[in-house]
Amino acid sequence: MYLPFFFVLTLLVSLHSATAGDYCVADLKQPEGPSGYSCKTPAKVTVDDFVFHGLATVGNTSNIIKAAVTPAFSAQFPGVNGLGLSIARLDIAAGGVIPMHTHPGGSEVLVVIQGCIKAGFIDSANDVYVKTLNRGDVMVFPQGLLHFQINAGKYPAIAFVSFSSPSPGLQITDFAFFANGLPTELVTGTTFIPGDVVKKLKAVLGGKN
Amino acid sequence: MYLPFFFVLTLLVSLHSATAGDYCVADLKQPEGPSGYSCKTPAKVTVDDFVFHGLATVGNTSNIIKAAVTPAFSAQFPGVNGLGLSIARLDIAAGGVIPMHTHPGGSEVLVVIQGCIKAGFIDSANDVYVKTLNRGDVMVFPQGLLHFQINAGKYPAIAFVSFSSPSPGLQITDFAFFANGLPTELVTGTTFIPGDVVKKLKAVLGGKN
Amino acid sequence: MYLPFFFVLTLLVSLHSATAGDYCVADLKQPEGPSGYSCKTPAKVTVDDFVFHGLATVGNTSNIIKAAVTPAFSAQFPGVNGLGLSIARLDIAAGGVIPMHTHPGGSEVLVVIQGCIKAGFIDSANDVYVKTLNRGDVMVFPQGLLHFQINAGKYPAIAFVSFSSPSPGLQITDFAFFANGLPTELVTGTTFIPGDVVKKLKAVLGGKN
Amino acid sequence: MYLPFFFVLTLLVSLHSATAGDYCVADLKQPEGPSGYSCKTPAKVTVDDFVFHGLATVGNTSNIIKAAVTPAFSAQFPGVNGLGLSIARLDIAAGGVIPMHTHPGGSEVLVVIQGCIKAGFIDSANDVYVKTLNRGDVMVFPQGLLHFQINAGKYPAIAFVSFSSPSPGLQITDFAFFANGLPTELVTGTTFIPGDVVKKLKAVLGGKN
Amino acid sequence: MYLPFFFVLTLLVSLHSATAGDYCVADLKQPEGPSGYSCKTPAKVTVDDFVFHGLATVGNTSNIIKAAVTPAFSAQFPGVNGLGLSIARLDIAAGGVIPMHTHPGGSEVLVVIQGCIKAGFIDSANDVYVKTLNRGDVMVFPQGLLHFQINAGKYPAIAFVSFSSPSPGLQITDFAFFANGLPTELVTGTTFIPGDVVKKLKAVLGGKN
Amino acid sequence: MYLPFFFVLTLLVSLHSATAGDYCVADLKQPEGPSGYSCKTPAKVTVDDFVFHGLATVGNTSNIIKAAVTPAFSAQFPGVNGLGLSIARLDIAAGGVIPMHTHPGGSEVLVVIQGCIKAGFIDSANDVYVKTLNRGDVMVFPQGLLHFQINAGKYPAIAFVSFSSPSPGLQITDFAFFANGLPTELVTGTTFIPGDVVKKLKAVLGGKN
Repeated sequence: MYLPFFFVLTLLVSLHSATAGDYCVADLKQPEGPSGYSCKTPAKVTVDDFVFHGLATVGNTSNIIKAAVTPAFSAQFPGVNGLGLSIARLDIAAGGVIPMHTHPGGSEVLVVIQGCIKAGFIDSANDVYVKTLNRGDVMVFPQGLLHFQINAGKYPAIAFVSFSSPSPGLQITDFAFFANGLPTELVTGTTFIPGDVVKKLKAVLGGKN
Repeated sequence: MYLPFFFVLTLLVSLHSATAGDYCVADLKQPEGPSGYSCKTPAKVTVDDFVFHGLATVGNTSNIIKAAVTPAFSAQFPGVNGLGLSIARLDIAAGGVIPMHTHPGGSEVLVVIQGCIKAGFIDSANDVYVKTLNRGDVMVFPQGLLHFQINAGKYPAIAFVSFSSPSPGLQITDFAFFANGLPTELVTGTTFIPGDVVKKLKAVLGGKN
Repeated sequence: MYLPFFFVLTLLVSLHSATAGDYCVADLKQPEGPSGYSCKTPAKVTVDDFVFHGLATVGNTSNIIKAAVTPAFSAQFPGVNGLGLSIARLDIAAGGVIPMHTHPGGSEVLVVIQGCIKAGFIDSANDVYVKTLNRGDVMVFPQGLLHFQINAGKYPAIAFVSFSSPSPGLQITDFAFFANGLPTELVTGTTFIPGDVVKKLKAVLGGKN
Repeated sequence: MYLPFFFVLTLLVSLHSATAGDYCVADLKQPEGPSGYSCKTPAKVTVDDFVFHGLATVGNTSNIIKAAVTPAFSAQFPGVNGLGLSIARLDIAAGGVIPMHTHPGGSEVLVVIQGCIKAGFIDSANDVYVKTLNRGDVMVFPQGLLHFQINAGKYPAIAFVSFSSPSPGLQITDFAFFANGLPTELVTGTTFIPGDVVKKLKAVLGGKN
Repeated sequence: MYLPFFFVLTLLVSLHSATAGDYCVADLKQPEGPSGYSCKTPAKVTVDDFVFHGLATVGNTSNIIKAAVTPAFSAQFPGVNGLGLSIARLDIAAGGVIPMHTHPGGSEVLVVIQGCIKAGFIDSANDVYVKTLNRGDVMVFPQGLLHFQINAGKYPAIAFVSFSSPSPGLQITDFAFFANGLPTELVTGTTFIPGDVVKKLKAVLGGKN
Repeated sequence: MYLPFFFVLTLLVSLHSATAGDYCVADLKQPEGPSGYSCKTPAKVTVDDFVFHGLATVGNTSNIIKAAVTPAFSAQFPGVNGLGLSIARLDIAAGGVIPMHTHPGGSEVLVVIQGCIKAGFIDSANDVYVKTLNRGDVMVFPQGLLHFQINAGKYPAIAFVSFSSPSPGLQITDFAFFANGLPTELVTGTTFIPGDVVKKLKAVLGGKN
């Protein structure tokens, strides 16, 4: 009833080719393609490629938004490359906010680990969906739609957010509008935000006029 | 060398089942699913399901943005349902603008048919890509990224824009922020745009405080 | 510079069709298709469709595996339908284990919220990847591969696991082998587990011989 | 060490929701969508939904092409709906041919079971790839490209062909050109085949002028 | 209320990794994969990668088909690589024709810019869908199906055609049959077109017998 | 009516770029990505890249399972790379068995070529689907689910199995549990199979304790 040892070794060797496609740990030094990074040589893959410690530490919220986003996307966590998902940690101090933003490449699901978070998104019909979430509550934000998270309590809040892409992207509207060289008149012309407000926000966010 | 008539008829009949999957003209009255609308019964499909006349007419630009977007998405043009693409027409009068917006569900390629258009997009790293386009010029806007189009000439401009989805969506940032019931303090808190500016824009765009 | 009210209302109305594709909240009473459940009528969608409270409660671990899996897949959490992701909660009491299993339809990323978990997976080449994870540590399990989680500490452990599918499935090997009517001789013949062991496990797991 | 019976029953019941997505047996009476047919109610699914006997019989090659294609696509074999593959049987009598055709929706892999087949395809650069295949030989035909199979021996040939889609479609060029109401002048104008030849082939294939 | 400069710089730097996946401008010198070309180094990407001027010029229709197809696929327009769409320009002089052809890799949507075009396609059931299109009219051609466009007026016609793939391919039936080394007897045997006609068309199209 | 030679040559040359995407023959020496291997240079592609002879030979069943699986996945048959399908041959001697296993990356369709095979799979709800198949019978096994094949007759059986992926993977449960260094206590702890049985199977299959 038991398999002879010779058969086993033979099969094990031939099976190694069968692992192609099981996973594709990112090799950040090789070319990137439309579906992600090139794969690290299977022989060099270890369990540490599939484990990430970077979300275990509290993000630094000593900034004006009193919040931090710590991503474990494929660029930081090569093990998720090609697997269709990723994760990040949100730390939002009391009074803090993750400003209005989108993820161009993926949907997001958030779970509150600590504290109280008011979160919301706006759809293509401009309808607003806002909810105050407590520990253990989950909310989903469909791909590409504007959304935000605010600490709605008196203490630091923590959440984990997962994405339907190993590289969902992150476009913070304020940074897209005010933290670069997009001319003030173009910002005003395409957003109807008065030029003096644009210039103030540009000054703060490091943008040029 | 020629096929007998009997064989032909038999084969033609059995082939009708082979068309399943060729296309899926939207039946807007049946349930919709994650991949699009249900398919119209094949027997009722005609050539007119695959043709759309709605982009032949100039859009009405007698409004404050002096521009119009006329979509031929699956909701307007059922023939594109399930086929992974759609199209729309842009009319931008002199001085007009298609305000900053995103398409959450698809990339866009624009071709200028008439006039001169300054177009641009901003990526996740906040880098800006702006170009002035003339008749016949083409520009691509990657999925989910903020972009805009402005008439850069003295005469009406026309462009056709195609999408990598039959239902790419359209989220105009100003409308998402100011044309709904999202409270002013939430808008200000998540965008850093001063409350008085938010209230003014809300008043104009029909939003509530 | 501001838009006239009439324009605004017109645009808002026409935009409602543009939301098609933003999301597709599952209507569990309508037909299901290969890409998920049919969509709830947009007019009836509320913020509560996108929020799930079921993971806020500790799972009942008063069972022999001393563990519980609480899913928020599209069948439980209709808001994730069609969005390419879902989430679940793991509670593993001291001495508890999530037995060897696979998710046929998606990859998984796990983050430890409390306690200490030894987790591992085995790839197609039979290589083993095991790691002991502490609070905040993240591990990814590629689609379809056998994996497990064990409480490696003295206190209850909690983790959240996200998936690259709204309906990833869950196949626990022991249940597949022993908790149904698969005849003992077929189990033995296809797994080489001796018949007496199969019968004992069947008896415990409710399977028939 | 063994699980209590109560736990087992509870888990088994709750797991039934976890099967969503495992498969989606086609219910041909319900609406079809872009990704395939609606799913049969899980409770009514039996093993016979996953088994197909229709390819066990020799196809009728008593016709002018001396060949027969017997499909097991989702319309004939509901079990493959949503699973990304299907299969068909080719019978080609001595002197028979599967005429030049394409599958708009999928790639094909052919394995010769009996006899000798000369097969070939032409790519977008008009390069030709032809090979004579014997029993057990395999050839792949990339999606959408023109290809054919000819009996290259003296005895009946049999092959099985698999597709990367449950509904790959089948467009036989001769039937598309000559077996319908496409006016002769349009056929000639778009193919450069002389009108008298078009009319002859139309007459044989049941087309109208 | 404004962000401190230090925070801004830090965030901007870290965000650069977040652009992975926004786009993947083709680097034609690096390896190509199943999903497209490798990506150009982000640091070298400029706005000109997303703009294409090649469709602004009238195609040369001084040939026997009196027509020209000018593609902006990923090989010509690297900016569309990985974005799921592309575009091309059709110029059809009076009396000109785009002969019967397919795009193996994508669906097509056509918009008439100038003149009058009779266009049509044939589905897997051999049903014909033909329509005469005027300026601004749109028609969609499902993936992989045979279709054609003919100038139906007295003056030059122009159209833009978009595709649901950055590299949809183009297989002109006449060229596939007659413009290569496919032996005449194979062409006749698989298409039923008489050998003398095949030889004539081969002679004209540069094919060998 | 015929095309001038000059036009033909020009078009043929420009069309060569149009073949990008038709296929992507694997170049096993170049980097691999999430969607498969890099493509062989088109100029070096020959018909032999699309043909595979390795399934024409009977697999060696002189082993304890009295069975052999011969794969034609992208690692063995580069022509299927990127085309979404692959194929393999099963040889099962009398009394032989393909043990319980899964394919993490694809669904499978099996056709019996010779002999009699009892095949079955188990879904996420632990329901069992078993059927005895004869020559010409077809059965489908949904992606990622546990399944097996047993020779149910007195003579050698042969089957061809196709997959919805060029690299579906193969995880034999017994090998995953017992043919590697996964410690006995972990195997027992996660499968409830008694330690002495685990050790015996490990000894036979070459695993370490």
